[in-house]
Amino acid sequence: MGVNWESLYTDSARVAQVSPLRDLLRFGSAPDVISLAGGFPAPELFPADAFREAAEAALTTDPGAALQYGPAEGYPPLRAFLADRLTHQGISVSPEEVLITNGSQQGLELVARLLVTRGCQVVAEDPSYVGGLSVFGCHHADYMVVSVDGDGMQVERLEEQLRGEGPKPKLIYALPNFQNPTGNTLSLARRHRLLDLSYRHGIPILEDDAYGELRFEGEHIPSLKSMDSEESVIYMGSFSKILSPGVRLGWLVAKEGVIAHLLGLKLGMDLSANSLTQHVVYRVCSTGMLDGHIEGVKPFYRERRDAMLRGLERHLPAGATWSRPEGGLFVWVRLPEGLDAEEMLAEAVREKVAYVPGMAFHPLKDCSNTMRLNFSAVPVPKIREGVRRLGRVVTRWSEARGSGELPLSGDLRAA
Amino acid sequence: MGVNWESLYTDSARVAQVSPLRDLLRFGSAPDVISLAGGFPAPELFPADAFREAAEAALTTDPGAALQYGPAEGYPPLRAFLADRLTHQGISVSPEEVLITNGSQQGLELVARLLVTRGCQVVAEDPSYVGGLSVFGCHHADYMVVSVDGDGMQVERLEEQLRGEGPKPKLIYALPNFQNPTGNTLSLARRHRLLDLSYRHGIPILEDDAYGELRFEGEHIPSLKSMDSEESVIYMGSFSKILSPGVRLGWLVAKEGVIAHLLGLKLGMDLSANSLTQHVVYRVCSTGMLDGHIEGVKPFYRERRDAMLRGLERHLPAGATWSRPEGGLFVWVRLPEGLDAEEMLAEAVREKVAYVPGMAFHPLKDCSNTMRLNFSAVPVPKIREGVRRLGRVVTRWSEARGSGELPLSGDLRAA
Repeated sequence: MGVNWESLYTDSARVAQVSPLRDLLRFGSAPDVISLAGGFPAPELFPADAFREAAEAALTTDPGAALQYGPAEGYPPLRAFLADRLTHQGISVSPEEVLITNGSQQGLELVARLLVTRGCQVVAEDPSYVGGLSVFGCHHADYMVVSVDGDGMQVERLEEQLRGEGPKPKLIYALPNFQNPTGNTLSLARRHRLLDLSYRHGIPILEDDAYGELRFEGEHIPSLKSMDSEESVIYMGSFSKILSPGVRLGWLVAKEGVIAHLLGLKLGMDLSANSLTQHVVYRVCSTGMLDGHIEGVKPFYRERRDAMLRGLERHLPAGATWSRPEGGLFVWVRLPEGLDAEEMLAEAVREKVAYVPGMAFHPLKDCSNTMRLNFSAVPVPKIREGVRRLGRVVTRWSEARGSGELPLSGDLRAA
Repeated sequence: MGVNWESLYTDSARVAQVSPLRDLLRFGSAPDVISLAGGFPAPELFPADAFREAAEAALTTDPGAALQYGPAEGYPPLRAFLADRLTHQGISVSPEEVLITNGSQQGLELVARLLVTRGCQVVAEDPSYVGGLSVFGCHHADYMVVSVDGDGMQVERLEEQLRGEGPKPKLIYALPNFQNPTGNTLSLARRHRLLDLSYRHGIPILEDDAYGELRFEGEHIPSLKSMDSEESVIYMGSFSKILSPGVRLGWLVAKEGVIAHLLGLKLGMDLSANSLTQHVVYRVCSTGMLDGHIEGVKPFYRERRDAMLRGLERHLPAGATWSRPEGGLFVWVRLPEGLDAEEMLAEAVREKVAYVPGMAFHPLKDCSNTMRLNFSAVPVPKIREGVRRLGRVVTRWSEARGSGELPLSGDLRAA
């Protein structure tokens, strides 16, 4: 007697995958493994002193507000700060067009709840951010897949696909800047073309811009939202990569009518944004330190990227290719055909290096020889050594494949 | 040209109601209005010093962890603290059976995502917590409604309804302690009977226990979860009412297999629990101050409840009735038949007193002469004056109804 739980679960609960995102957040744990698997900013660069002072001030000046429920749409001074900052970045908005979210992952969930119905199509880059795919998958979306190259989403291909018959996609999920996982950036010409497609076919764009401020090379390209004359773009930003992910604060930007619906959905999801971290982050930002902090982080990330690219050049065998990002956190590697990055991971972990196999980033889960490497959270000497270890494993597997031998199948859990 | 947003919204987005919860969080804003409308703990009783010290320590000892992504299931020491505390309260659990949530509102959303499908039935108390109803409504549930009396949900009536033909409900949503909105508590005999019904019919119970520790009178009654021999109960708790709502931290307790599915759903919703507030709250709690803090709050709440009950006795006209809670935050008032609490609100606000009309708490929205009053966040002199003002309005409307006169219809926004 009692509850037969398995028989009661919804489809969403059955579909919800623990593994892909969880692995990202876990591999860092074994101390002797060099993890290139995370999606983390460098913790040693967090402005701890600024946070300490801000927390002290927030909890001294107005603890009754910092510890109380706050408005669901966000702490008004923080919304005003963000509206002002976005306006300086070319996205002219009022505070009423900014909704504070519990990290941009909640932004994805809110937009999915707003637009995605079972079986509808979502335009997804291939590869795309696994956390976005996981949300749309949970809402039972189908994908219209568009490959990514060095200039980002191949918008020309999307244009062709949209010429077909049948219902139009409900949403275009775009990561224009230093895309997770490839690090590639959408060119200006393609941005114009993508907006044009959105307007012509009446398809909203979700512009996920978690990394846009982390450009350490090349020229800034205007965001889709800043050029969005028809209000077809929902823009999404986050403090996670530019300040701290632990505060779980992101934002959605859209016209007021859209924000009102997103707010209605958010109310049911968590009632109120996090007062304490909003008060603290607002105080951190109101000192004017944010831009300087970001500038201070960039040289570290650039140096780490350089170390990674040099290591890959030196240690990966012929047939492997990889991206050369001008910002962000990641390099994307394509292994020689026939290698399976998921199979190879167990041996890599035995060699004390970890990465994220690319499969989960492919919307159709149809490509096994890719991997994502993170450079932002790893100091240069460890990147050098980590990529050397990775090179050994890839070379060994590559040669074994070439000679028809298969390496012994490894068990990740035994590693 | 451009996106026709209205045509693209999902049913959930259309259903998501901004107003009911939003009003709760808003009425407190006008400074000359005495608001009995909130659901807030008393901000002047927040342990601000403890938070300040904890924030200082968390950001000094290990800022890299406090500001970084953390495990989605929650900060391990906080899960261990909660498991230990729950075990002392009769709910024997391991840390692996505790999932930290972004407030218990996220717990509601997660459980709905786990179990609720379009058109399935959810057993709801009448009245019930508006935030729960709003979540289940968003997931298009139908309700099997069970009235609440002074001993909580009338479980005998549920038993009768479950005898009928047709599909069984997927979930029983129970608020056994100082239920929001009535403040009433489920008797021990009914608790046993409810568990028995759950086991016999295989229906899980969600035990929402946000207020259970705030008993300031009468004897403690064991939680459903503590007596749940068949693991049919998902238990939900929160720091909001016993420490601080601004930190947005709650917890779900269930057997590990159920927690695994809830975690899968949570990963898609927000990736990771809030590291900063978890580190801070863990440090606040690890000083051992929590039980003493709760004991320190109770006399204030008791005194405020007493003031409210005395005021209602004195100022409300014949025909009005109300609950006499032994804990929690709320008193529930039933006005004389024929009065409409929603209509009357505009005049009440002109008289500088606010409350929450009861309609939104009735699952079927079929009762208009009820209202929820909050006493926890209002000092005694304001409660006295607020209830006096309320009494004036109710008496006037009551007399007008008796004499066939209708008061002038007021516009809330003009007030």
